[in-house]
Amino acid sequence: MQIALVIGSAVATIKDEKLHGRKLLLVRQTDATGEPIGPSCIAIDTVGAGAGDLVIVTEGSSARLTGQTDGAPVDMVIVGVIDSLEVGGRWTYRKQ
Amino acid sequence: MQIALVIGSAVATIKDEKLHGRKLLLVRQTDATGEPIGPSCIAIDTVGAGAGDLVIVTEGSSARLTGQTDGAPVDMVIVGVIDSLEVGGRWTYRKQ
Amino acid sequence: MQIALVIGSAVATIKDEKLHGRKLLLVRQTDATGEPIGPSCIAIDTVGAGAGDLVIVTEGSSARLTGQTDGAPVDMVIVGVIDSLEVGGRWTYRKQ
Amino acid sequence: MQIALVIGSAVATIKDEKLHGRKLLLVRQTDATGEPIGPSCIAIDTVGAGAGDLVIVTEGSSARLTGQTDGAPVDMVIVGVIDSLEVGGRWTYRKQ
Amino acid sequence: MQIALVIGSAVATIKDEKLHGRKLLLVRQTDATGEPIGPSCIAIDTVGAGAGDLVIVTEGSSARLTGQTDGAPVDMVIVGVIDSLEVGGRWTYRKQ
Repeated sequence: MQIALVIGSAVATIKDEKLHGRKLLLVRQTDATGEPIGPSCIAIDTVGAGAGDLVIVTEGSSARLTGQTDGAPVDMVIVGVIDSLEVGGRWTYRKQ
Repeated sequence: MQIALVIGSAVATIKDEKLHGRKLLLVRQTDATGEPIGPSCIAIDTVGAGAGDLVIVTEGSSARLTGQTDGAPVDMVIVGVIDSLEVGGRWTYRKQ
Repeated sequence: MQIALVIGSAVATIKDEKLHGRKLLLVRQTDATGEPIGPSCIAIDTVGAGAGDLVIVTEGSSARLTGQTDGAPVDMVIVGVIDSLEVGGRWTYRKQ
Repeated sequence: MQIALVIGSAVATIKDEKLHGRKLLLVRQTDATGEPIGPSCIAIDTVGAGAGDLVIVTEGSSARLTGQTDGAPVDMVIVGVIDSLEVGGRWTYRKQ
Repeated sequence: MQIALVIGSAVATIKDEKLHGRKLLLVRQTDATGEPIGPSCIAIDTVGAGAGDLVIVTEGSSARLTGQTDGAPVDMVIVGVIDSLEVGGRWTYRKQ
């Protein structure tokens, strides 16, 4: 799964009915320190994430394997909020 | 999902029967301001999008999870029209 | 889906039995003018495409959603022959 | 599948219930010598891998085809620990 | 599907039980002349391929659609050995 930073949100009034009521967050893939390295994408939040959180993002068909996205036309979902990342015995990221 | 700009359309007389009657739009992935960053691709429109719209694009098997693409050999579908994108408390895009 | 140019063909005597009798074409992803931008790949033709055609290419599990590829270990299939592409009211490609 | 190096681990208290009890490792895709070439990602460990191991990483829907990830919203899983890699009759990597 | 060159092999004693007895080959994506352009990856061989062969590689869920990979956590499989590639009426590759 990608490590990603929640940078904002998206609003879309006209959308597939299976997306109604879903929270659309803007995320960017990051490295292990939380520094963005990828383009802005839209992910469905399923864990109460918010701007500034470093999150775990699942893509593809597996993005439909949550209670909130089952059967929906989505390919990117937030499945966890990262507390910390550790590389070589040192924290590269800790949630504040 | 990708943020993408609808830049045009495609016509294909010879195509898989499950694509007949589908609207084929040209889209390019954009950043959070709507500036194109990716190559031109063909997506099936399911929400009445048109040229100039910033849209939500779903890829892969999830692209078949709409009423118009169920069972069709498609891997890219437009599932929403973006009204606005917000990053750090500021709008980076607003539909006009 | 990708816009792609058919540039040639591949021959493989030893192959999965579900590929027997399938036409293997070489394709390269292009931009909206038909100029190649991606590497050469092998796609299964299902619509009678030939060298020089600009085509619609579907990838992933959706590549199995045609009558000729159902149940086969393929991830790239040609599902349409492009007649024209239009961007901003102008043709960027027309089939000759 | 990717060749990847386990570089560390991730902790996430808030996560999808199907991820509870799963070991989240940080991995980076490598070349055939074990040198990292890709960004840090999070993979579910299913084979007892640890930091410093070169591993086999499976992505996409196939990441759900293990006993520990069946039905879970995951798209990256470690399915093997590499003992050695051989190119042109020479070892490019041997586990120590 | 990718055109890929078999460059070597991998050994992994500890691995998912559904990978036992499978041949793990190192492959690199190539262009239409057989020149490597992509990183080294691990693919399951299902057609008796060997080092030096140019092969057809299928990725994603379709990699499970062979008799040897059904139900296994794999995302890359060799489904054919290429005899020749032809571009613009000329061979760009012929197996020797």
